[in-house]
Amino acid sequence: MITAICPGSFDPVTLGHLDIIRRAASMFDRVIVAVMGNYAKTPCFTAQERVAFLKRAIDLPNVEVDAFDGLLADYARIKGAKALVKGLRAVSDFEYEFQMALANKRLNPDLETVFLTTTAENMFLSSSVVRQIAMYGGDISEFVPTCIIDDINKRLLKKGDDQS
Amino acid sequence: MITAICPGSFDPVTLGHLDIIRRAASMFDRVIVAVMGNYAKTPCFTAQERVAFLKRAIDLPNVEVDAFDGLLADYARIKGAKALVKGLRAVSDFEYEFQMALANKRLNPDLETVFLTTTAENMFLSSSVVRQIAMYGGDISEFVPTCIIDDINKRLLKKGDDQS
Amino acid sequence: MITAICPGSFDPVTLGHLDIIRRAASMFDRVIVAVMGNYAKTPCFTAQERVAFLKRAIDLPNVEVDAFDGLLADYARIKGAKALVKGLRAVSDFEYEFQMALANKRLNPDLETVFLTTTAENMFLSSSVVRQIAMYGGDISEFVPTCIIDDINKRLLKKGDDQS
Amino acid sequence: MITAICPGSFDPVTLGHLDIIRRAASMFDRVIVAVMGNYAKTPCFTAQERVAFLKRAIDLPNVEVDAFDGLLADYARIKGAKALVKGLRAVSDFEYEFQMALANKRLNPDLETVFLTTTAENMFLSSSVVRQIAMYGGDISEFVPTCIIDDINKRLLKKGDDQS
Amino acid sequence: MITAICPGSFDPVTLGHLDIIRRAASMFDRVIVAVMGNYAKTPCFTAQERVAFLKRAIDLPNVEVDAFDGLLADYARIKGAKALVKGLRAVSDFEYEFQMALANKRLNPDLETVFLTTTAENMFLSSSVVRQIAMYGGDISEFVPTCIIDDINKRLLKKGDDQS
Amino acid sequence: MITAICPGSFDPVTLGHLDIIRRAASMFDRVIVAVMGNYAKTPCFTAQERVAFLKRAIDLPNVEVDAFDGLLADYARIKGAKALVKGLRAVSDFEYEFQMALANKRLNPDLETVFLTTTAENMFLSSSVVRQIAMYGGDISEFVPTCIIDDINKRLLKKGDDQS
Repeated sequence: MITAICPGSFDPVTLGHLDIIRRAASMFDRVIVAVMGNYAKTPCFTAQERVAFLKRAIDLPNVEVDAFDGLLADYARIKGAKALVKGLRAVSDFEYEFQMALANKRLNPDLETVFLTTTAENMFLSSSVVRQIAMYGGDISEFVPTCIIDDINKRLLKKGDDQS
Repeated sequence: MITAICPGSFDPVTLGHLDIIRRAASMFDRVIVAVMGNYAKTPCFTAQERVAFLKRAIDLPNVEVDAFDGLLADYARIKGAKALVKGLRAVSDFEYEFQMALANKRLNPDLETVFLTTTAENMFLSSSVVRQIAMYGGDISEFVPTCIIDDINKRLLKKGDDQS
Repeated sequence: MITAICPGSFDPVTLGHLDIIRRAASMFDRVIVAVMGNYAKTPCFTAQERVAFLKRAIDLPNVEVDAFDGLLADYARIKGAKALVKGLRAVSDFEYEFQMALANKRLNPDLETVFLTTTAENMFLSSSVVRQIAMYGGDISEFVPTCIIDDINKRLLKKGDDQS
Repeated sequence: MITAICPGSFDPVTLGHLDIIRRAASMFDRVIVAVMGNYAKTPCFTAQERVAFLKRAIDLPNVEVDAFDGLLADYARIKGAKALVKGLRAVSDFEYEFQMALANKRLNPDLETVFLTTTAENMFLSSSVVRQIAMYGGDISEFVPTCIIDDINKRLLKKGDDQS
Repeated sequence: MITAICPGSFDPVTLGHLDIIRRAASMFDRVIVAVMGNYAKTPCFTAQERVAFLKRAIDLPNVEVDAFDGLLADYARIKGAKALVKGLRAVSDFEYEFQMALANKRLNPDLETVFLTTTAENMFLSSSVVRQIAMYGGDISEFVPTCIIDDINKRLLKKGDDQS
Repeated sequence: MITAICPGSFDPVTLGHLDIIRRAASMFDRVIVAVMGNYAKTPCFTAQERVAFLKRAIDLPNVEVDAFDGLLADYARIKGAKALVKGLRAVSDFEYEFQMALANKRLNPDLETVFLTTTAENMFLSSSVVRQIAMYGGDISEFVPTCIIDDINKRLLKKGDDQS
């Protein structure tokens, strides 16, 4: 049985993320979606909130959602995972992920990094684009799962007010 | 009559920006230079100052300068603009702008993003390079319009002192 | 009145090309689609055939189709064109086109190169991908204008036979 | 049971290819190494020779070697394969493969393209580098499987003579 | 006698940096390793500490270590340096460094920027990767000079505690 | 005394090549410009002609011109060269050269590949752009040394006639 990890900050989860998770779930026996706790000084949503969003949006028998804080290479070892699955949208994604893949290979030689390409429709989609659109009251319904739209709008519209 | 928008932070405007604005003005009937208010937590110059610099530096009958805060796709709709004009200097510029163009196309299907290439002489030029040079008392006269040199030096040299 | 040129080999024209041509036609007063005669030693279709395909596929009042053999910078001067319009799909497209834009600017300083981004759906689409699919009897109906499908299949399936 | 395909020209197979094939074999139940027959007008080795080299070099229970001529998307459908596995060495590899992945997704929506990164040591390694080194009598023993060194040298040194 | 400068933030120095410095020292008569004081708002180690680390790690007769604060183009002029030496790991490194090289050439036309490629083993290695690994108690002994391992671990593990 | 090699096909030499050669000559004690004999099936000028062009165009005491056929790593060893000097214009140049640098490092560990950036004015300039312009009777006087303009025009205009 092969376990794969889909790591990310998911701040918040987008339809692009869900697409990658679904494809990973169709290729591997078990998939752990791993929310990285402290990827940024001030994430928009807490790790707990991001985990909750993912759990609400995913309904696949072989997918679990987890949060972690530490080195991905160690986390994979603890979980017995063979593969890290990452979605690639663009060349600059690739460059960064390529360096991380080489670093993780040095820290955990048994761990493979596996890249999937996003669908063409989602090529521009990222959590930060979603946050930016939501902050100005734009329509995010084509970009995130329906079940979390209200939570995002509530948080980000309020935040926009605070800053002005 | 086709209206085009040249969006940017212009913090401060450089000769590279002016070159792109001039070329846009030669191709489109009406050009709006749109200063994005809140592109960064702490811009070096306020939106008002940046607008003033642009107005001082541009003297073209079909070009206006404006400030805005919000989604570019919405702003273009309000202004009746058909095109966004962006200058490209490098591959990484292109990657980012390409993603923004796809995002804006989704938010406003009638809006075209149009890329112009900077002249070879300006390929390295950016507002942040200008700020860095000015901060250390370097000569910025080949990089920005003459009419704003003093204002930039005054602001940035002082800022350098504050930080040391 | 601004004239723009959409240059290319169009061997054969794809829906991606048509999309760029349509967008150029919505922004400029007059658009010349210019088929470059000798872009390769052995094109799949003759310049005449490629022009005929384009004429059959395009029905826009401000768009003409022409063939030419020579330097684009000279051709633009003769036609009184202000802009070259190119579609970009990827970073490597951009790199090459960027160099050609700088070269053309040196040969004809009044000529602007204007880049549009392809729609996400057409990001993978190129004449060579179409030729490859047609050669093996794949379905090209989503990739080229309906009115030229039969001609392409006839030519390329036959060609496939010749080579085996 | 998940079947994956490792497609390529393998002209000839390198240690970089073998590394990718081994990693694919550790992640998927069944791996088909698929030699594309007609990738170039004049390959250095025939499809038959390339298949023979791969069979000699690979000794893994869940890996088969096959040759094919046609569209990869069709071949995958026939073989019941879920994934295409490709090794990435560089950004330009990525760009090209990304476009092919989008094209294959359109032709066969059930087919995933999966990218693995080559190890750092093999980043420069390609069949064409091997051919170039062998042609001038350089030492290729660190770049290809031992069991095919003599065949490569015999073919390519002779070819070098022919050309001079 | 040709003097070259190896500029950087070295926060902290890695084995990748040392490799580049050694290669520069084998090609140029005199090499100055120049620690840029204020490259970031909050570096992990002070300029003084970074200089001390470099001095401890380097034992080459023609290499000096220095700190500076200001424009590299000016610093090179003062030091009588002919060349800036930079290591490149990836395309995005190249893009940024290319722009800086063009900028420095404008500010100091006698100054050449010279790029060396990192060895394949160090392609993923950067100060920020080292800091990230150390922060979570990972093993950094293959990434930095032995003589500074303890200092890095002391600083960064403590820092990790502060943040949690 | 450090010897550097400037390798290339120089088909024909451009002002961009001369700029790189001059800069190499200012940094290294001895520079060998090495014309690669058989870089393409059908070069436009023979190796002998390309060497003659370079000798005519270069007048620097520490620069020699030579032709060679074989592996660059071997040639450098024979000549006692410590460095290969290459000019970079663009990201795709960099990718290819980076791979060649890693390959040459494996074949000859004492050999450094050193990259210089072309000046902004020459960023678009390549032998193939020059050949293309000359073929259609364009003005190449800003792109190649004056002393070889006539020879290029004679060869390429004639060639153009042959093809039509």
